[in-house]
Amino acid sequence: MYQRMLDTIRRANAIAATHELDALLDQMVDLFMEVTDANAGSLYLYDAETDELEFKVVKGDPQSLILLGQRFPASRGIVGVAIRTKASLFIDDVENDPRWERRLSGTSSLRLRTVYCLPLLLRDRPIGVVQVFNLPPEAIDEEGELALLHDLADRMASEIEKARLLEQANSRQRRLNALVDIISHLTTTLDRQELLTRIMDHARDLLEVEATSVWELDDQADPPVLKLHVATGERSEKLRQMTLPVGEGIIGQVVATGQRMLVEDVSKETHHYKQADVESGFVTRSILCVPLRAPGIQLGQERGEINASIIGGAQALNKRNGGMFSEDDIVLFEALASQAATVLQVARLNDDTYRLFMGVIKVVAGAIDAKDPYTQGHSQRVAEFAVAIAEELGLSRKEVNHVRIGGILHDVGKIGVPDSILKKNSGLSAEEFEEIKKHPERGYEIMRQEELRWLLREELPALLQHHEREDGSGYPNKLKAAEISRIGKIVHVADVFDALTSDRPYHQGRTADDAFALLQRGIGTEFDGDCVAALLRARANGNVYTQRELAQENH
Amino acid sequence: MYQRMLDTIRRANAIAATHELDALLDQMVDLFMEVTDANAGSLYLYDAETDELEFKVVKGDPQSLILLGQRFPASRGIVGVAIRTKASLFIDDVENDPRWERRLSGTSSLRLRTVYCLPLLLRDRPIGVVQVFNLPPEAIDEEGELALLHDLADRMASEIEKARLLEQANSRQRRLNALVDIISHLTTTLDRQELLTRIMDHARDLLEVEATSVWELDDQADPPVLKLHVATGERSEKLRQMTLPVGEGIIGQVVATGQRMLVEDVSKETHHYKQADVESGFVTRSILCVPLRAPGIQLGQERGEINASIIGGAQALNKRNGGMFSEDDIVLFEALASQAATVLQVARLNDDTYRLFMGVIKVVAGAIDAKDPYTQGHSQRVAEFAVAIAEELGLSRKEVNHVRIGGILHDVGKIGVPDSILKKNSGLSAEEFEEIKKHPERGYEIMRQEELRWLLREELPALLQHHEREDGSGYPNKLKAAEISRIGKIVHVADVFDALTSDRPYHQGRTADDAFALLQRGIGTEFDGDCVAALLRARANGNVYTQRELAQENH
Repeated sequence: MYQRMLDTIRRANAIAATHELDALLDQMVDLFMEVTDANAGSLYLYDAETDELEFKVVKGDPQSLILLGQRFPASRGIVGVAIRTKASLFIDDVENDPRWERRLSGTSSLRLRTVYCLPLLLRDRPIGVVQVFNLPPEAIDEEGELALLHDLADRMASEIEKARLLEQANSRQRRLNALVDIISHLTTTLDRQELLTRIMDHARDLLEVEATSVWELDDQADPPVLKLHVATGERSEKLRQMTLPVGEGIIGQVVATGQRMLVEDVSKETHHYKQADVESGFVTRSILCVPLRAPGIQLGQERGEINASIIGGAQALNKRNGGMFSEDDIVLFEALASQAATVLQVARLNDDTYRLFMGVIKVVAGAIDAKDPYTQGHSQRVAEFAVAIAEELGLSRKEVNHVRIGGILHDVGKIGVPDSILKKNSGLSAEEFEEIKKHPERGYEIMRQEELRWLLREELPALLQHHEREDGSGYPNKLKAAEISRIGKIVHVADVFDALTSDRPYHQGRTADDAFALLQRGIGTEFDGDCVAALLRARANGNVYTQRELAQENH
Repeated sequence: MYQRMLDTIRRANAIAATHELDALLDQMVDLFMEVTDANAGSLYLYDAETDELEFKVVKGDPQSLILLGQRFPASRGIVGVAIRTKASLFIDDVENDPRWERRLSGTSSLRLRTVYCLPLLLRDRPIGVVQVFNLPPEAIDEEGELALLHDLADRMASEIEKARLLEQANSRQRRLNALVDIISHLTTTLDRQELLTRIMDHARDLLEVEATSVWELDDQADPPVLKLHVATGERSEKLRQMTLPVGEGIIGQVVATGQRMLVEDVSKETHHYKQADVESGFVTRSILCVPLRAPGIQLGQERGEINASIIGGAQALNKRNGGMFSEDDIVLFEALASQAATVLQVARLNDDTYRLFMGVIKVVAGAIDAKDPYTQGHSQRVAEFAVAIAEELGLSRKEVNHVRIGGILHDVGKIGVPDSILKKNSGLSAEEFEEIKKHPERGYEIMRQEELRWLLREELPALLQHHEREDGSGYPNKLKAAEISRIGKIVHVADVFDALTSDRPYHQGRTADDAFALLQRGIGTEFDGDCVAALLRARANGNVYTQRELAQENH
């Protein structure tokens, strides 16, 4: 008896070394069966929130394994009695007991005689039940034996709690680590479309849901609307173009109120905007919807800050495997949405500033072009031709963008050339021609003031060198082929191509073919061969249209 | 005997309900003393990494509480024997045992006779020792009693492990939650100085260190240097201006190689750059130093991406309370540094784009001013006067910045006015004057093309309305006081003040006093009274200098 007790403690110690909950429960049932000489057993965990019991272990009857994971109300069966009374029961002839329900026992085919049913109590609250079958009555007829079983049950309850706490903590840790990775990864793109895709993909994985979507508030629209930007999941393609009035649907409510909504059964929720399901064919069961709340963003001393605002909302649809959204899901989704909103706001700001810069240089270049009737729209076209060349040359997108900016700005020095000269149709005197030839240096000098020298370091050579020639006969510095920067050569070819093909007040521009013939004749003397070839390829690929062709298209 | 065993199990179960490690250990020693009828006891945890034992519990001698937390090599004392042999010892007369060291027993004043020393083994590895004193030899002379004590020790080892795992998991969870908050918070500023301060403050709190610093790589310098931007902690002020050649010091190594460094004892490390300590008076003991590795950042279709690069490094100095940096510290600091590097890179990019925009509008406005010898530097001064007015009026920093940009751009429409008219000293014909008067509308039309209409919506009224007058006699739209936007009124006053006070080729500008007298006379007819008063206050506060004053200062 004494030795048996020691053995039991030792077995319990060995079992307790298992941190994995399912294995722990499994070994626990083995131990209870062994101690009581039973030939079958089962274990249930109790969910106080729903007052349900869940099958966790079934032993002695392999046919009953399908019961694992099933739930039933704790008001039923003998196990239910143990939960409600918080006391153990021994029954001699269980199959004739009125409280008995075979399908709750997990022993569908065994002939059952005795049962001993023991609640697992933690600080006097039930957390589960162990049940063993067909034990000899003498296994529990000594008081000491019963006491040992109760102590063992107490110990097991405590081990179950610890294993659960550990599993919970580890699972939270895993999800938090994933969240940190996700948040870090989000911040590495300011491309808004890419950003929205990432947010949704990450949310889907993190929350284990079937689909996710982000709705952005478009407050330039009147009245403001919510625009669906991305929906991941199988049927997302159909949804990409949807917009929704603010206030409509669950998402519209969330954006309007700034309060998250959790709807476990959408069919019972009147706010659900069913059109999305109808159009996509997706069947929404449950929705977790949170606002995209962009915080105030500090821009620094001179610029002040962007105010906090709700810029949209994010939805997670249908927890996978029919599960419910947990508290942790909500916390994680809100943390993700918060960072997503911040990065979206930063991306938007960054976009605005960049487009402001591009917009301003385009209109300024356009205004300078407009002083000379010959060159209406010239800078913009040169930029486009130069970009086409740069792309054909295989430059990176960043380098192509330098070429774009350099192309737009190449004639900015003409701002300093007197209108009287710029506007002359013909008959420029030598002095006047010398004056015009100053524009590359003028543009370069204007644009390299203070920190622009650094910020435009890649573009400035386009301003200075777009009239240099391969043979050294160009201006202002008579550079030879190897001395001219790539961006200078590219913009030079683009500039001449536009000059050749554009209409003038008193004569038509050349055709593209004629212009290419001229360019090719100038390879090595005036033009870089690679650049001319690249422009020709771009033309063949349909990426180059002359001013005349564009004008005809517009009529 | 049997009942005693059940009681012991019950006590152990109760103790196991405690999840807090220190309380658990404390109660464990009580239980061991009780079971063995001892009158003193102590418990040590074993650190396999350093082969040391740490005092965790001392019972029976209050004077020895100061020993708690102390560590000693596991090669010493009777507890050391228990660790090495992984077996329990009973000693009859411990004070005469050659292996005995009183100060390792935690019982400085008690007369000690017997000792029973029991290693706590987890999967056959020692994790600690329990020691009980002055127990009667018969307490352990039955084999069953000894077996019970061993089983109890096994159980306690397992409880210790779980309590530790739980504490570890909870502490990780807390720190991860803090990290999520921190990195979310980081992204809400693009003000680099503020950002650097936040990074360091957060790192100090998260890692529990005495000081932190961030070094930014300045690769515009030749050769590149590391610039200390912020150091938090008591003596940080002295360090704010330091720079360091790349490659020098621990931080220089980390930035050069991209590999983190952990130096637990700086005095033994030759790479440590001692100058920082000498200058600040701070005594660095230990350093954890990680690179600031900015990832590649996607800017979107047209702009390509910024390449990944190491942009600096971050240091954490002296773990508080003399502790060591843990694996978790390293992981957290690297996660923080990674996000910090990303946000710094985004902030830098955003800054660059903004300064590019500001730089370009300034040089363009300057180039337009330069066409008219009267107005050299005019736009820039108008912007400054307008900013001074806006600040005096209490506008937000964001609104002030709209005024700044509107001020710079206000005359941009002159790009379309023929030079011949702009350059005329005097004697403008009525037609020529009408031509000049078109510049507000011209500027407005140029700058509201396409999306600039939205992006410059706050600034455009400055371009259009800076020649409107309160009484409706201005141009182009003869707006009356209430119809003129605030930015229009501000820029109008600033514009006239500069025109009045600037030198012209053939006459000197007025003094500020004369100009203010004229402005005040025009209040209500030409000028807004609040704006004139604000400019006057700004002048009184020393924030307004006329072109003549600035020119004199420069001579």
